[in-house]
Amino acid sequence: MMKKPLVVQKFGGSSVADPECLRRVASRIANDAREGRGIVVVVSAMGKTTDRLIHMAKEVHADPSDREYDQLLSTGEQITISLLAMALHHLGVDAVSMTGPQAGIQTDASHTKAKITKIDPIRVQENLDQDKVVIVAGFQGLNPSRDVATLGRGGSDLTAVAMAAALNADRCQIFTDVDGVYTADPRVVQDASKLEVVAFDEMLELASMGAKVLQSRSVEFAKKYGVELEVLTSFEVKPGTIVKEASDMEDVLVRGVAADKNQAKVTLRGVDDTPGVAARLFTAVADAGVNVDVIVQNISQEGHTDISFTVPRDELGPVKECLGSIAGVSFKEAAYDDTIAKVSLVGVGMRSHTGVASNVFSTLADLKVNIQMISTSEIRVSVVISEEQADDATRALHAAFGLDSA
Amino acid sequence: MMKKPLVVQKFGGSSVADPECLRRVASRIANDAREGRGIVVVVSAMGKTTDRLIHMAKEVHADPSDREYDQLLSTGEQITISLLAMALHHLGVDAVSMTGPQAGIQTDASHTKAKITKIDPIRVQENLDQDKVVIVAGFQGLNPSRDVATLGRGGSDLTAVAMAAALNADRCQIFTDVDGVYTADPRVVQDASKLEVVAFDEMLELASMGAKVLQSRSVEFAKKYGVELEVLTSFEVKPGTIVKEASDMEDVLVRGVAADKNQAKVTLRGVDDTPGVAARLFTAVADAGVNVDVIVQNISQEGHTDISFTVPRDELGPVKECLGSIAGVSFKEAAYDDTIAKVSLVGVGMRSHTGVASNVFSTLADLKVNIQMISTSEIRVSVVISEEQADDATRALHAAFGLDSA
Repeated sequence: MMKKPLVVQKFGGSSVADPECLRRVASRIANDAREGRGIVVVVSAMGKTTDRLIHMAKEVHADPSDREYDQLLSTGEQITISLLAMALHHLGVDAVSMTGPQAGIQTDASHTKAKITKIDPIRVQENLDQDKVVIVAGFQGLNPSRDVATLGRGGSDLTAVAMAAALNADRCQIFTDVDGVYTADPRVVQDASKLEVVAFDEMLELASMGAKVLQSRSVEFAKKYGVELEVLTSFEVKPGTIVKEASDMEDVLVRGVAADKNQAKVTLRGVDDTPGVAARLFTAVADAGVNVDVIVQNISQEGHTDISFTVPRDELGPVKECLGSIAGVSFKEAAYDDTIAKVSLVGVGMRSHTGVASNVFSTLADLKVNIQMISTSEIRVSVVISEEQADDATRALHAAFGLDSA
Repeated sequence: MMKKPLVVQKFGGSSVADPECLRRVASRIANDAREGRGIVVVVSAMGKTTDRLIHMAKEVHADPSDREYDQLLSTGEQITISLLAMALHHLGVDAVSMTGPQAGIQTDASHTKAKITKIDPIRVQENLDQDKVVIVAGFQGLNPSRDVATLGRGGSDLTAVAMAAALNADRCQIFTDVDGVYTADPRVVQDASKLEVVAFDEMLELASMGAKVLQSRSVEFAKKYGVELEVLTSFEVKPGTIVKEASDMEDVLVRGVAADKNQAKVTLRGVDDTPGVAARLFTAVADAGVNVDVIVQNISQEGHTDISFTVPRDELGPVKECLGSIAGVSFKEAAYDDTIAKVSLVGVGMRSHTGVASNVFSTLADLKVNIQMISTSEIRVSVVISEEQADDATRALHAAFGLDSA
C-alpha cells in the first residue's frame, strides 16, 4: 500500500471568521481530502472571538492571572475546531476535532507564551490511519501542571509546523490573506513577482516582509526540523510560495528586496570608550525589552566614540527611559531619528558571490540616497536610509538586481 | 486542627449571565470563604452562551455529531469558570478553575447525555488543602475515549451533588432564582410558607413543584449518597430550604401541596380483559417515549374493562399515535381529556398516620370537587380533578392540613 501524502494545513482567524468562512474552508479541505491526501488542519480562534474573551476578562479583572487567561482564551480555538469538524461532516468528510492537549501537544510552564516541548501525536495518528481529517486547535497545549497553556503570538503557525514535524508530514501549508512571498512589496514595486520558492534563511532575513506572513519562530522551527512550508491564500485555489532548505533549490544572487519602515535610530555621541561599555549599554537596552537591530560604532577619538543603533519605532520610548541611567555608561548627547527605514537585499547566492554590496551602494548613489548605516550577513545586505527615500530605493534595487518581472 | 466545613455551591446560567453577575456571585463566595468555609463552586455556562454556540453549530450542520457538539458546548462552562476565578482574584480570594476533566469527573460514553461514572477529585482536594476556592465547570466530564462529554439537562446540579458526595462535603447549595421550596405555589396559595426543611422523598414526590427548582435526578443522587442539599436564591443573602434525610428531621403529616396542571387523561373503554393486556398496553406507550403517571383500571364486566391513565399534556400526541396499533390490545373507544390537574399532598408523616386520604376526600367533597382518579404512595396522596378546580382545591387542602401560615 502506498503511503498517502500528508499535509498539515493552517488557517488563521480571518480565514475562519464566521460560519460562512468555515464552510468555505471546509469545502477546500474536502477537495484536498478527496484527492487522496492525509490532512491535519490547525486553526486559530474565529475572527473577533479572542478579542471578545479578552474584553470579558478585563471586565472582571484589570490584570487577570495567566493560568485563568489561558483557560479562557483556549476556548476560542476549541469553538473553531468543533464547528469546522461539523462543517466537514456536512460535506460527507470524516473528521474529528482535537484540542491541543488531546492532540498530544505538550508545553513548558510559561502561561500565555508557552513553548512547545514535545508532541505525542498518538490520537492524531490513530485518526489519520482511519482516513479522518484531524482538526487541531492551534495556539495551545498541555503544560506540566496538566493545565491548558497558550503559545503566544504566532502560536497557531508554530502548532502547525511542530505538528508537521512530529507527524513527518510532507508539507505544512500556511493559509493567509496574501498569496505568497514577493520579490518586494507589490504596493511599492509594481513589477514585484511572487516567488515560487524561498530558502528558510532568506525567509528569516526577509523578516520585515515575512512578519506579515510568517513568524520568524515558525520559520526557525521549520528549518530546524526540515518541514517544507507553503504560504498561500485561503481565498483562491492556486500555488503559493514554498519555503524550504536552500540546498534543495537553485541559488539566486538576490531573492528579494525588503523595506522596513518601522525603525528608529538612536545615536549616542561622545560615549566614554572604556572596555565593556558596549556590553553594558546593550545589556541594559535588552533588559528593557527592546530588540536592537543594526549597530554601528565609529572609531574612537580621544577616548570617546559615537554609537548608533536601530530599534523598532514603538520601542523608542523604553530606550529613552533606560538610557538615562545605565551604570558604567556615560555619553555627551543622545539623538533620536524616527524617520528612517532599513532596506535589505536577501539571497543565498550572496554566499558565493561578491560585489552585491558595491552594486547596492552605487545604485543608491545614483539616486542620491545617503546611506546612514550598513549591516550585512552572509546572505543579506541592509542599509539604513531616510524613510522618504525608501520606496525609490526599493524600486531601484529591485530593477538593478534583475528582479523586475519581464 | 479543626476541619473546615466544606460546601459545594452551584450557580446556574442566570446567576452568572454577564460579567456584572459574575462579580456579584464572586462577592458572595468571597464572604463565605472569609467566614472560614472550604468552597467548591460549580457553574453553568453564562446566560445565552449555550444558545449562541448551538446557533453557530446549526449554521454549519443541521444535525451535528454528538462528540463535536460536546466539544463545542463544553467551552461555555470553561468560559464561566475562568472568568469567575478572575473575579475572585480581583477580590483578593485565592481561586482556581477546573474543567470537568481537570476536576476528575468521569462519564460514560453517551455524548450529550452522559452519566457521571466516577469522580477522582484529586486536583480539587489538593487545591482545597491550599485554601483555594475551586471553581468547577458543571455539565461536563471526561469519557472513556478521553473526550469531553456533556451531561444533559440538569447536569450542572448533578455535577454539584456528585462533587459534594465525592468530597464528603457538609452541604451542597443550589443557588437559583427562587428562595426555597414552599408548602404550595405562592402564586396560588397566599398563605404558603417557605419550608425550612424537606425530606429527599418528599422533594421527589413534590416533583411538580420541585422540577422548577431541582431536577429529580439530582435529588435521587443526593439521597443515594446522603448529600444534604440547600435550595436558595442567589439574589439575596438568606437561608433557603434544606433537603435531607427524613430520619434527621421531625416527621410532619403533610409537608406541602402540589398541583400539576400539565397533565392529560386517556381513557380506553371496553378493553378486552385478557391476561397481559395492561402489560402490552403500557409497554407500547413507554416505547413511544411517554411517561405514564396515574393508572386506574375498573373491575372487569363481561370480559371488558375500562382503563384510564394520565400522561404529560405535551405527550398526548405520541399516545394517540401509538394507541391505534398495539398488537394484542383491542378496545371500543378512546377518550382524551386535557383539562385535568393532579393535586398531591406529600409528607413523610403519612407513613405512620392514617386518615389523610379520607380528610382529602371530605375536604374536596365540601368544595363539590369531583375526584376522577386517586393514586397514593407511602408518603403521598394524589387526586386527579378538573383543571379549573385545581387552585381552589389546593387552597382548601393547604388550609385543611394546617399549612396556612399564622
